[in-house]
Amino acid sequence: MVKKPWQGRFEEETSRILEDFSQSVTFDRELYPQDIRGSIAHARMLGRQGIISEEEAGRIIEGLEGILADLDSGQQPWDTALEDVHMNIEKILTDRIGEAGRRLHTARSRNDQVALDLKLYIRDASDALSRRVEEMLDILLTRAQEQAGTIMPGYTHLQRAQPVLLSHHLMAYFEMLRRDHGRFSSLGDSLDDSPLGAGALAGTPHPIDRTMAAAELGFAGITRNSMDTVSDRDFAAQFLFNAALCQIHLSRLAEEIVLWASAEFSFIALPDAFSTGSSMMPQKKNPDAAELVRGKAGRAVGNLTSLLVVLKGLPLTYNRDLQEDKEPVFDSFRTLAGSLEIMSGLMAGVVFQADAMETAADDGLLTATDLADYIAQKGLPFREAHEITGKLVALCLARGCGLKELALSELKQECGAIDEDVFDILKPGSSVERRNTPGGTAGKQVQRAMEEAREWLAKVRAD
Amino acid sequence: MVKKPWQGRFEEETSRILEDFSQSVTFDRELYPQDIRGSIAHARMLGRQGIISEEEAGRIIEGLEGILADLDSGQQPWDTALEDVHMNIEKILTDRIGEAGRRLHTARSRNDQVALDLKLYIRDASDALSRRVEEMLDILLTRAQEQAGTIMPGYTHLQRAQPVLLSHHLMAYFEMLRRDHGRFSSLGDSLDDSPLGAGALAGTPHPIDRTMAAAELGFAGITRNSMDTVSDRDFAAQFLFNAALCQIHLSRLAEEIVLWASAEFSFIALPDAFSTGSSMMPQKKNPDAAELVRGKAGRAVGNLTSLLVVLKGLPLTYNRDLQEDKEPVFDSFRTLAGSLEIMSGLMAGVVFQADAMETAADDGLLTATDLADYIAQKGLPFREAHEITGKLVALCLARGCGLKELALSELKQECGAIDEDVFDILKPGSSVERRNTPGGTAGKQVQRAMEEAREWLAKVRAD
Amino acid sequence: MVKKPWQGRFEEETSRILEDFSQSVTFDRELYPQDIRGSIAHARMLGRQGIISEEEAGRIIEGLEGILADLDSGQQPWDTALEDVHMNIEKILTDRIGEAGRRLHTARSRNDQVALDLKLYIRDASDALSRRVEEMLDILLTRAQEQAGTIMPGYTHLQRAQPVLLSHHLMAYFEMLRRDHGRFSSLGDSLDDSPLGAGALAGTPHPIDRTMAAAELGFAGITRNSMDTVSDRDFAAQFLFNAALCQIHLSRLAEEIVLWASAEFSFIALPDAFSTGSSMMPQKKNPDAAELVRGKAGRAVGNLTSLLVVLKGLPLTYNRDLQEDKEPVFDSFRTLAGSLEIMSGLMAGVVFQADAMETAADDGLLTATDLADYIAQKGLPFREAHEITGKLVALCLARGCGLKELALSELKQECGAIDEDVFDILKPGSSVERRNTPGGTAGKQVQRAMEEAREWLAKVRAD
Amino acid sequence: MVKKPWQGRFEEETSRILEDFSQSVTFDRELYPQDIRGSIAHARMLGRQGIISEEEAGRIIEGLEGILADLDSGQQPWDTALEDVHMNIEKILTDRIGEAGRRLHTARSRNDQVALDLKLYIRDASDALSRRVEEMLDILLTRAQEQAGTIMPGYTHLQRAQPVLLSHHLMAYFEMLRRDHGRFSSLGDSLDDSPLGAGALAGTPHPIDRTMAAAELGFAGITRNSMDTVSDRDFAAQFLFNAALCQIHLSRLAEEIVLWASAEFSFIALPDAFSTGSSMMPQKKNPDAAELVRGKAGRAVGNLTSLLVVLKGLPLTYNRDLQEDKEPVFDSFRTLAGSLEIMSGLMAGVVFQADAMETAADDGLLTATDLADYIAQKGLPFREAHEITGKLVALCLARGCGLKELALSELKQECGAIDEDVFDILKPGSSVERRNTPGGTAGKQVQRAMEEAREWLAKVRAD
Repeated sequence: MVKKPWQGRFEEETSRILEDFSQSVTFDRELYPQDIRGSIAHARMLGRQGIISEEEAGRIIEGLEGILADLDSGQQPWDTALEDVHMNIEKILTDRIGEAGRRLHTARSRNDQVALDLKLYIRDASDALSRRVEEMLDILLTRAQEQAGTIMPGYTHLQRAQPVLLSHHLMAYFEMLRRDHGRFSSLGDSLDDSPLGAGALAGTPHPIDRTMAAAELGFAGITRNSMDTVSDRDFAAQFLFNAALCQIHLSRLAEEIVLWASAEFSFIALPDAFSTGSSMMPQKKNPDAAELVRGKAGRAVGNLTSLLVVLKGLPLTYNRDLQEDKEPVFDSFRTLAGSLEIMSGLMAGVVFQADAMETAADDGLLTATDLADYIAQKGLPFREAHEITGKLVALCLARGCGLKELALSELKQECGAIDEDVFDILKPGSSVERRNTPGGTAGKQVQRAMEEAREWLAKVRAD
Repeated sequence: MVKKPWQGRFEEETSRILEDFSQSVTFDRELYPQDIRGSIAHARMLGRQGIISEEEAGRIIEGLEGILADLDSGQQPWDTALEDVHMNIEKILTDRIGEAGRRLHTARSRNDQVALDLKLYIRDASDALSRRVEEMLDILLTRAQEQAGTIMPGYTHLQRAQPVLLSHHLMAYFEMLRRDHGRFSSLGDSLDDSPLGAGALAGTPHPIDRTMAAAELGFAGITRNSMDTVSDRDFAAQFLFNAALCQIHLSRLAEEIVLWASAEFSFIALPDAFSTGSSMMPQKKNPDAAELVRGKAGRAVGNLTSLLVVLKGLPLTYNRDLQEDKEPVFDSFRTLAGSLEIMSGLMAGVVFQADAMETAADDGLLTATDLADYIAQKGLPFREAHEITGKLVALCLARGCGLKELALSELKQECGAIDEDVFDILKPGSSVERRNTPGGTAGKQVQRAMEEAREWLAKVRAD
Repeated sequence: MVKKPWQGRFEEETSRILEDFSQSVTFDRELYPQDIRGSIAHARMLGRQGIISEEEAGRIIEGLEGILADLDSGQQPWDTALEDVHMNIEKILTDRIGEAGRRLHTARSRNDQVALDLKLYIRDASDALSRRVEEMLDILLTRAQEQAGTIMPGYTHLQRAQPVLLSHHLMAYFEMLRRDHGRFSSLGDSLDDSPLGAGALAGTPHPIDRTMAAAELGFAGITRNSMDTVSDRDFAAQFLFNAALCQIHLSRLAEEIVLWASAEFSFIALPDAFSTGSSMMPQKKNPDAAELVRGKAGRAVGNLTSLLVVLKGLPLTYNRDLQEDKEPVFDSFRTLAGSLEIMSGLMAGVVFQADAMETAADDGLLTATDLADYIAQKGLPFREAHEITGKLVALCLARGCGLKELALSELKQECGAIDEDVFDILKPGSSVERRNTPGGTAGKQVQRAMEEAREWLAKVRAD
Repeated sequence: MVKKPWQGRFEEETSRILEDFSQSVTFDRELYPQDIRGSIAHARMLGRQGIISEEEAGRIIEGLEGILADLDSGQQPWDTALEDVHMNIEKILTDRIGEAGRRLHTARSRNDQVALDLKLYIRDASDALSRRVEEMLDILLTRAQEQAGTIMPGYTHLQRAQPVLLSHHLMAYFEMLRRDHGRFSSLGDSLDDSPLGAGALAGTPHPIDRTMAAAELGFAGITRNSMDTVSDRDFAAQFLFNAALCQIHLSRLAEEIVLWASAEFSFIALPDAFSTGSSMMPQKKNPDAAELVRGKAGRAVGNLTSLLVVLKGLPLTYNRDLQEDKEPVFDSFRTLAGSLEIMSGLMAGVVFQADAMETAADDGLLTATDLADYIAQKGLPFREAHEITGKLVALCLARGCGLKELALSELKQECGAIDEDVFDILKPGSSVERRNTPGGTAGKQVQRAMEEAREWLAKVRAD
């Protein structure tokens, strides 16, 4: 056999190399509150069922509570040689309470344990994100209510299209985030079923009471198939999707902040506290916070992709590839929580330049659609009304004026049905007010929408 | 100014180049049933509200029904010069019924129209996929019930770990797909709110009744904000995620089919009808169908990524980028529908080689965990039971035998608590039966799970 | 055994279901020119080596050339029952020339054949894209040369930062696309090695001459390992990456087009031919073409993701999953080729509004950095120069004026080293001209850069 | 104005919230060696050009060298309040050497500085990965050379297809990784052009010598356009793609390790040092290392996706979104470097079970293709030879024997051209040896391939 020069090194260093590569405690220790909570429920159940003695269960629980407190206060160090959060905590427990600690793992496997921990984490994370979304919803709504009368151009293709209320614009983001809230609040995808008791893959021969442990942990039920349970990460994928979509929503709002803060738009002034100045150019307030939030859509999508790639083609049941499920979840949670906080602060402090918005909305041709609708309401087919309006707009362009500067006679020349009342139609404010069906931009509709939103928000916050 | 040689070409060919690039009718015509259904509801509402006459509404509806029939039968050609499905249908309608056709677009914009069409399409697609999933669930369950007693090795890390029932293994996929069913059946994310009436972006000045049109189309309600409505594609992103996750599940089952059909596993024989033979090597039945399904996880993930990239950083409201929302949806739908059909056929016809599975399950060391649990139940801490078992397994390995071939005296030497009853423990069948808590692999549990599944399935199919 | 109601259907319909699902001829027929080219080279080599007779080789080649002509002219239909492009062509050939056609597949397998076809396709596609990129480079450069003196604001964070030349801005995109050109022109990743002769996976026992066939097809060499050859798709992944990155570059330019065409920027007027008007609002020229190009970045990234997911975790050698390699390649090619054509036309026709750009560049505080650099050049540490400038800018903001409106005495008060010559420094044009090191925005540098670009472009077009 | 309850909190906490959110020093400090190297070159150039005094340049360089040493030894702490690695180092420098430190940033901006740092990092990372790939290539080649005569089944569709040499199989991975080596070694995509001197976006008015600084840092040239320079991240995207593709290759090898280590294949025994045992089941050696490497393909693809999403639609020039470019690069580098190390160790230590492989290769029907080729070489059209072989295989299947167990008379009955020499053809070893064209699996070819590989490897390692 050929002498392998590299063999020596590998033999000597293997334990360290593989330990470093495969250990997860540097990141999965983030799960310690969930891991301990799960172990306490498990111990209590074991005691209740007589699988271990009630006294042992009591000592285990007391021990775990002490460890939790010490970890919370940063007094308990981690040992990467012990591989993961589970082994670390079990070792600390055994060091503290002795032999009883070695009974904790009865009727349990790391496979169902880690599924439980991650599910609990995602429940907590979703809950925290719901709260963050609510805070941001509150801010969006409050700002919308404040700005009740402000008119601005509504855009399609980033071209000014029709006048709308700024409140209506802000409430569009309220609706996006309300859907995000729905996703973070729902307990679909087995998030409400406890995995504990699935064992390594096949269940356990011990007379456990899965339902009791589940209830202790706040689950409504238990999972139905042990093999599926230890290999299922749907709930993590759904969480990553939820986070990615919410981050995409924030990237859209961030894009608008960047646009509005430009010299060209000048629709807002950024709050000092949420922009980055330059010691040299104090006039320059860079929308760094918004840009970062927009950029972080990248990692949110990347994290989702990452887990889907991991899952592709994996046979049953537990495969070590699944260790790769945690970091994307932690990262998307932190990223989104931070982004929501930043965007909330930004939206709370942004100063709307109502004058600039209203000037932009009053550019003279923005009510062309209103004119077409007006003509159609006089009885002409919509497509014909459309063509007439086109001719009148062309006349304005040739003359460099707005529609309302045309004489009635000129209007009548193109369409006899046009009357004096057309000039009301051509004002931005009138355009806004006429869009008075549910969901439209008329003040009354927006008012009603904001009221509904306020009630809904109060209700979900009370829950 | 420099003379531009390319300018000539562009000027001449522009209309064709841009038309080709921006037209969507070659793919969005897939939406025609939804587009016509939406237009019929819109026309009926316009008539009811007096925005057009009831008579005009009647002629429009009749005209649209005729077009639908002709499109269904393939008699009506498409014109790519008319850009998209909406313009095509409106043009055909006007050609057929005259001026009334030009009134159909009153109080509507392509922006709310296309949002409606896509939402209706996704509702239909989700419904169709629910049916396909149900069919596959039925097959999985039927096969699981057939194979009630068959024992096979359960795997972790693709290493034989513990004996399980084949039924239990199959039911793990039942659970995955049941979650998919839940996702396709839910009407979250505004899928149950009609976008019609949002207009171009701000609503409409016509006295429309959004709720009536919504009810006509089977929606429970209407969207709340017109600006959000025309730019929201959350429902499409969620659909693409649902499809990707289901396709990932199928890729996992496909991987197992590929493994099981290998000479090395020989756990199944592929049905002739669902494998690809070779004229030269008739013994070779390639699991092409399963490989294709596994590979198609790529496009499902790609389609999801695609839409998320499109949405990133888009300001309100409608931007033409959104035209890119349709092809991923169509492709993921077709891909998944086909994959479900293929995997259903494959699972229906696959022949399980129970003997090979049972031989693999009886490899003598697969019940080591049972031995550890047995010792723990005698009162030793689990971690200690674990170590004792390790020593006994090492003894087997040295001797080249299974655990059940060790003498009781040898067992007792390592652990006095071991008794004659241990030999029952060491049989695969006994290992399976002892995992008798909910979700476990014991026959009774699996039986109960299959009964619950059968009832649930009957119920959802009855809905 | 339980009676399976679905079994009947599957048995009857199987051949059709699986045929539909697994056939590829509906898309892989796009490979027919490459497939025929490859077969001709193979036949010629077989004849030369005496594996078939020269006469047979001649008849095969003649037959294939006839088929190519008929396919080019659309006279030869495809048969999906024949599964793929390879089987279709072989069948047509055999129908036309008889038994000799059945000898073509000697010493070849579909596995090396399809690898060859796809590699040839990607070579052709890369070449075509290089040409398209060159055309766009020509247009960018020509426009940059035309606009030699125009000054505009350079942006960071979408905030006006420093004055730059429009030519310099356009040449930034020239550099991006020049890198794309480099990627499409390079023949890395085995693109220059012929796969033909790898057989199904292990080579062939026939006395073939791989090098001869490779040379015939324009390859520099042959692949080195048959097993790798039939399972390698690196070249396709690299192509998809190249296309995605180029599409991302176009999305950036498209974003600028959208911004510049907005009423707020008004830096450009869109050419009629490359914008979408509205019959009702002729003033509205929507930048649809640019929006579509931006949106299509989604599918380019999606296609790349798709193939990477397919490849993940595939064991050697050929697996049917690889059939999923083609559609992403075709789609990314078509998408990018179309996007380059559209953006070329758009950039050729766009009208730059130099006045608006120059007004924006002259906003009075844009030369603050120049002032700081001026002070630093007088000998103060840069960070101190930075602070002094900050104070002066604050003074301007308080007074609502630009830096050049401050009196020399006021400037001197903050920094004694400031002299009369400072007022030259504060003009946009002077700011531009002073950035006179290679790569900088000074006219002389940009001129030199454009000359180098012109020479380089002429050279690559001549190759 | 409505009183905003949340406003108080935001005002008070803003600096901390935004600081936490936008700081990058917790991760970009990984760039400190590159940042200091870049600053030293910049200072030396400033001194040489007389922009600062030679004496100041000398003190700056000495100061930076001291900081580098202190950071290397962990003695210098970081301050997150100073935002990023650049500000930290500049502050430490100024604290140490006083006013001269404040001159270092002359003629430089953070925008060109960070582009430089990341480019240097990626050059270093690519170089390190090239070394790691070389090490793994050495191991693969050494193992292939050791196993020169071992025959195993070659697979398509995970079905045994034809006998091949194990060496040939291993060398397929050599070729994959050789391509990776090519990607990591090439300096395409402006990796060989120094960005330093691009300034914030437009260049600098100081009389710098970009070429001198570039040469000092080992670049061959300088970038051509300052605006492109500060916004270009192509080199990072290409690096992430290179890393993803290499990780995908490793995922394929990892899949094979997992398969081969299964009880069903038993083609290898995992080295103790690179598998994870179980204290309870010492017979169980889980291929955790391989599974982790396979799973990590997810993050590699995710990181690539992440950056592409960030870049989509960004206008020129620097936008803060670009801060998101670093973490994916760092993570993909670390992930791949670790994976290469682990797979190298695994492949170095794996024990090939030649007997099991050879038994699997000798399953009696694996040489069916050889029989068809043999018949074709007797002069029959290949497709006819194919059909005859099919009939003979069917006969074997009916009889439960291999092809070599058929009598000559039986063979002749199907095809008169078959002679006694056919039985040589039907042996696995003979099948292997007959595939004796370049790239084929015959011993001579594989030997030659290994020699070429050894020479090539020696050459690249010597460079």
